[in-house]
Amino acid sequence: MIQSRNLIGLLIILTAFLACQPTENIKTEAFVKSPNEDIAVCFGVDELGKPYYSVTYKKGTVIDTSYFGFEFKNQPPMDDEFKIIGVQERALDQSWDMVWGEQKTVRNQFREIEVNLQEESETQRKLTVIFRAYDDGVGFRYQFPEQKGVDSLIIMDEHTDFNLTGDHMTWWIPGDWDSYEWLYSTSRFSEIDALERAKRNKDIASIYIPENAVNTPVTMRTDSGLHISFHEAALVDYAGMTLKVDKENQKFTSELVGSERLGYKVKRKLPFDTPWRTIQISEKAGDLIESKLILNLNEPNKLGNIPWFKPMKYVGIWWEMHLGISTWDIEATQDMSTFTKDKATSSKHGATTENAKRYIDFASKNNIEGILVEGWNTGWSHWIGFDDREGVFDFVTPYPDYDIEEVVKYGKEHGVELIMHHETSAAPRTYDQQMDTAYALMQKLGIHSVKSGYVGPIIPKGEYHHGQWMVNHYNNAVIKAADYQVAVNAHEPIKATGLRRTYPNMIAREGLRGQEFNAWASDGGNPPEHLPTVAFTRMLAGPIDFTPGIFNIKLEPYKKGNQVNTTLAQQLALYVVIYSPIQMAADLPESYEGQPAFQFIRDVAVDWDRTEVLNGEVGDFVTIARKAKGSNDWYLGSISDENERDIKIEFSFLDEGKTYEAIIYKDGEDAHWNDNPESIVISNMDVTNTSSETFHLAPGGGLAISIKPKQ
Amino acid sequence: MIQSRNLIGLLIILTAFLACQPTENIKTEAFVKSPNEDIAVCFGVDELGKPYYSVTYKKGTVIDTSYFGFEFKNQPPMDDEFKIIGVQERALDQSWDMVWGEQKTVRNQFREIEVNLQEESETQRKLTVIFRAYDDGVGFRYQFPEQKGVDSLIIMDEHTDFNLTGDHMTWWIPGDWDSYEWLYSTSRFSEIDALERAKRNKDIASIYIPENAVNTPVTMRTDSGLHISFHEAALVDYAGMTLKVDKENQKFTSELVGSERLGYKVKRKLPFDTPWRTIQISEKAGDLIESKLILNLNEPNKLGNIPWFKPMKYVGIWWEMHLGISTWDIEATQDMSTFTKDKATSSKHGATTENAKRYIDFASKNNIEGILVEGWNTGWSHWIGFDDREGVFDFVTPYPDYDIEEVVKYGKEHGVELIMHHETSAAPRTYDQQMDTAYALMQKLGIHSVKSGYVGPIIPKGEYHHGQWMVNHYNNAVIKAADYQVAVNAHEPIKATGLRRTYPNMIAREGLRGQEFNAWASDGGNPPEHLPTVAFTRMLAGPIDFTPGIFNIKLEPYKKGNQVNTTLAQQLALYVVIYSPIQMAADLPESYEGQPAFQFIRDVAVDWDRTEVLNGEVGDFVTIARKAKGSNDWYLGSISDENERDIKIEFSFLDEGKTYEAIIYKDGEDAHWNDNPESIVISNMDVTNTSSETFHLAPGGGLAISIKPKQ
Repeated sequence: MIQSRNLIGLLIILTAFLACQPTENIKTEAFVKSPNEDIAVCFGVDELGKPYYSVTYKKGTVIDTSYFGFEFKNQPPMDDEFKIIGVQERALDQSWDMVWGEQKTVRNQFREIEVNLQEESETQRKLTVIFRAYDDGVGFRYQFPEQKGVDSLIIMDEHTDFNLTGDHMTWWIPGDWDSYEWLYSTSRFSEIDALERAKRNKDIASIYIPENAVNTPVTMRTDSGLHISFHEAALVDYAGMTLKVDKENQKFTSELVGSERLGYKVKRKLPFDTPWRTIQISEKAGDLIESKLILNLNEPNKLGNIPWFKPMKYVGIWWEMHLGISTWDIEATQDMSTFTKDKATSSKHGATTENAKRYIDFASKNNIEGILVEGWNTGWSHWIGFDDREGVFDFVTPYPDYDIEEVVKYGKEHGVELIMHHETSAAPRTYDQQMDTAYALMQKLGIHSVKSGYVGPIIPKGEYHHGQWMVNHYNNAVIKAADYQVAVNAHEPIKATGLRRTYPNMIAREGLRGQEFNAWASDGGNPPEHLPTVAFTRMLAGPIDFTPGIFNIKLEPYKKGNQVNTTLAQQLALYVVIYSPIQMAADLPESYEGQPAFQFIRDVAVDWDRTEVLNGEVGDFVTIARKAKGSNDWYLGSISDENERDIKIEFSFLDEGKTYEAIIYKDGEDAHWNDNPESIVISNMDVTNTSSETFHLAPGGGLAISIKPKQ
Repeated sequence: MIQSRNLIGLLIILTAFLACQPTENIKTEAFVKSPNEDIAVCFGVDELGKPYYSVTYKKGTVIDTSYFGFEFKNQPPMDDEFKIIGVQERALDQSWDMVWGEQKTVRNQFREIEVNLQEESETQRKLTVIFRAYDDGVGFRYQFPEQKGVDSLIIMDEHTDFNLTGDHMTWWIPGDWDSYEWLYSTSRFSEIDALERAKRNKDIASIYIPENAVNTPVTMRTDSGLHISFHEAALVDYAGMTLKVDKENQKFTSELVGSERLGYKVKRKLPFDTPWRTIQISEKAGDLIESKLILNLNEPNKLGNIPWFKPMKYVGIWWEMHLGISTWDIEATQDMSTFTKDKATSSKHGATTENAKRYIDFASKNNIEGILVEGWNTGWSHWIGFDDREGVFDFVTPYPDYDIEEVVKYGKEHGVELIMHHETSAAPRTYDQQMDTAYALMQKLGIHSVKSGYVGPIIPKGEYHHGQWMVNHYNNAVIKAADYQVAVNAHEPIKATGLRRTYPNMIAREGLRGQEFNAWASDGGNPPEHLPTVAFTRMLAGPIDFTPGIFNIKLEPYKKGNQVNTTLAQQLALYVVIYSPIQMAADLPESYEGQPAFQFIRDVAVDWDRTEVLNGEVGDFVTIARKAKGSNDWYLGSISDENERDIKIEFSFLDEGKTYEAIIYKDGEDAHWNDNPESIVISNMDVTNTSSETFHLAPGGGLAISIKPKQ
């Protein structure tokens, strides 16, 4: 039900303006409150006609008076001399079902105001801002309506301020235009120094950090304990937004990723909408994870059900390259050791028919339905480190030792579907040229998902992974893939902004510092706090192809001096904590042999009817319980940073009156991410919805529990 | 190397006669000592010409002066008026390799005397007795040489005495001529009452216990802590021996199983040897298990290697019949509930092509190489409870819903070999008639093992499972099976007497109260002390097809009032403790789903290079470690009776200087065979050969450990 009425006449008499606490001398001319009335967005235009907004939560200001405006090419900026020419209010309370996801049904309940502005200057340009207040945060976007005599706009930058109310604790990565593969820093806002961080990069193939800015999602905690996370939703035909750090004024200001090749940031035909700028707000950190704000701000499903894609677990010829056991290229000159410190000594081509069958055999025996094969196609001897990468990769021609039709056939016989791999080496034009051919081959073979990769600096030079040109490339690939019944898992992607709601074949992506850094990063890999931070930052954007499940934690005998910096139990917990509809069992098959803990990976679901974040603090720990889709089984994961801790689990999420068998995979008494990471204890107990139990998590530890109703 | 010399002239001057302590007034005329000189057998003939022997261990008498003799049909008995006409000594120290077994190599080291006797009466019959003294016990047999004018002997009974030196604690089952499927009783010798026990049978299809006797192996412990076990070796063309309880004289006397049909016990052409009568002697109970006396007393391998049979784990369509889920017969009128208290309500034929494929799928995924399918052939609606069972079972004709060729083919594609099933319903003549045809079908299909069954009273009436006629049937089936490359696992068999050394296609047998009694026995199943007793009694005879691995301990929802009376951890431990080259994972596939403890069954070996009994007391507990064949992996199992206990494990059996990963499957803190049997804790730790660790076993509990060298 949509309620809409013109409020202009009513605004003056509303007493609830007390909810908005703008800076002195600034008047509020429109506002909207969340359905539970905890959150309010206030809007006004100051004496210079500068538009501003603020956001409150309960009695406190979350975003203080914040201005916004745009700079254009060949047009004056648009940031003052505005007047309000209309305000419309709208409310919605609907539910929609996820094709796959963290929960079956999402409630989309908000109140909205649409504020129509017009310049009082001679240009008389119009701008509309839509503010939506949800119980879990705020989203707003700009609408550029058709304008007389203006066909399109070239945006040189967008200046949306987020005026903070304190020097909040912030979990941030640099505002890199090319990569999100950074460790999160934890610092006060005033201590953010992305440029300093940038100097310490040694392991990312391409970075560009022009200013002291951060990428989103960026999550903060106020000293009063409120959690705020900034991001954007529905990033379509626009540049990605970074947030510039203005320490003097204690605010973030949007800074779009640009194109040095084109000399602007965004070019759009009128009319158009920008992506939503989002502010998730919650008292409990865990509520950020449960928030569906980003998804709700996206358009409904345009594809309908996609029966050709089912959430799945998968194995792959992948980790062995990172360990230096095998290579992507048939010439066997390159593996991740080649790119890092150690020259591989006994490397050989990984993607052979025989090796693929070995992984298929393993998958088939272990309730795993997918197999990724990297390095199967020609081009791999000419990627990282080469400038002339256009026209090198071929997405339909296998190496001679890899019979793709045989692998597909063998997989089908064993109930295991091949996952295609398209590494573009960040040469998207080459990929675009072959895309139809490549997807058509997949459709012919019955392959319904692809992992794409964009390693290295974008060709052409001057473009960046997060700019409008690449945003369009990534999105168009997904839309085209759908025509061929292909789902896309992009690595080195543009960040997730909830488009999976609209295109459910956008299944997962990387966009963070993943598991592979543990195999070779010069800084020793991802520290124990990495994933308890990721859960409250990167994960708010959408599904993560993190590739958990490394059992050979010390990477022996392959990688001396590197290791995974968690316990084995945490590797299990990640299947629940880090959400994705595709979850890799990333280690070598032989690492799982004889390991009773592998039962959790066999069992764990990948699609869910419910998700409950039981507890958590950003960067410290988090515990999530999820109910398997169409089942009464639950899976629970809990992870800790470098500190050990006791976690009390209340099983009240279970159905009343039922008894369940819980199989508990917890850290051994002497477990420690560094000293004894593989120490794990598996036990079982009966639980009901009145049970509660305290579990000890080791330093860098974890806890995984499968819970099934007893007969 | 064999040393042999005539000792007659030397005997008188030997001072070592002190080792023999015969009854007063009785002289020792020959003796033999074990290689380590701890055990001595003394032989003499008394003033009436009655031959006798005695056995000492160190300074003590184990078997006091014991006489022996035979009764014949149409001939006077042979038990006195003997004189010694020759004594020969022989010694051997050889090693032989097991085709499969508890250890790679067996040392066969003994000293022997052969005593040639002749009657001084007018019959002048000759008899030879051979005594072998091993470090682990004594074996002796009778040789009937050719005699003038006598073609064959009809033995009415053999009277070999075993004169005990005290009222020893005894672990015994009744001297049943038809079945060994009894719970062991623990009592003083003087309190053995097999006939009283017999009255309480409610669950065995056929029993016959004519006297107060026991079956062998029967194990005793003297008050000074010495362990003695009586049995026989190389039971070929002879009747099985029971031991009659003579409480007045505190001795056992052999009583052969007879044939009421033929009116005698044994008929043999001359010359012939009897089986060996064996007395295993050890201070530590566990040494009885390590003893290879029974095997050493058998003839060397006559088949050579049998590459067509490999030790394996197997699943089967079997437990579901015992649970009343499905039936053997296609008419679905019978399952074990039919034979017991509850009428099955939802039964259906178990042996269908589809169901077999379901088990094959499960086996294939879990490192299990065999599948047994019972109830596949016509005849099953006419077995237990019917008298006219001749000509009923057909060993080549499948029921119409079971396509044996398709099952074999599907199994081969999945690396799982069918195990044939031949239930004879104790109508051996019917089986004999079809045997060549049946084995030829197996050979044609590439099936290399058969489980045979002999449920019910033997047809023809008057024959018993343990008599000479059936001994020959069982043995001939094995010899014939070898011609067709078939290995035999007989149920309701004659007891094992070490013939597997000679015919390594005699792979395992039942011959004890097995797992299935837990599903339906009217006395509530096998109590927790059953298997800690079996390990020191029945298991001394040879491999046991016990069919361990029940995970759904309470048999819910199938069997109210019955359950397995051990913890889940003990079910795992049995794969190590109860030796067999074939080990069933007996439960339903669905009972194993999601159970991390199943990893132990996936991993555990079934063929061994070494076996070490680490500790144990008869009927109380036992811990065994075994080293997997051709591997550096070890598996350890420990089981307890109804008492909880702490077991200290010294890992000194491991190689020096190596570090191993041990995965420990132990009882949960609250585990209890009745109150909480499925509570299990799995953990891992590094161990070396200097490690020692104490583990707690629950009441009815167990411990299983897999131990693999770390890379």
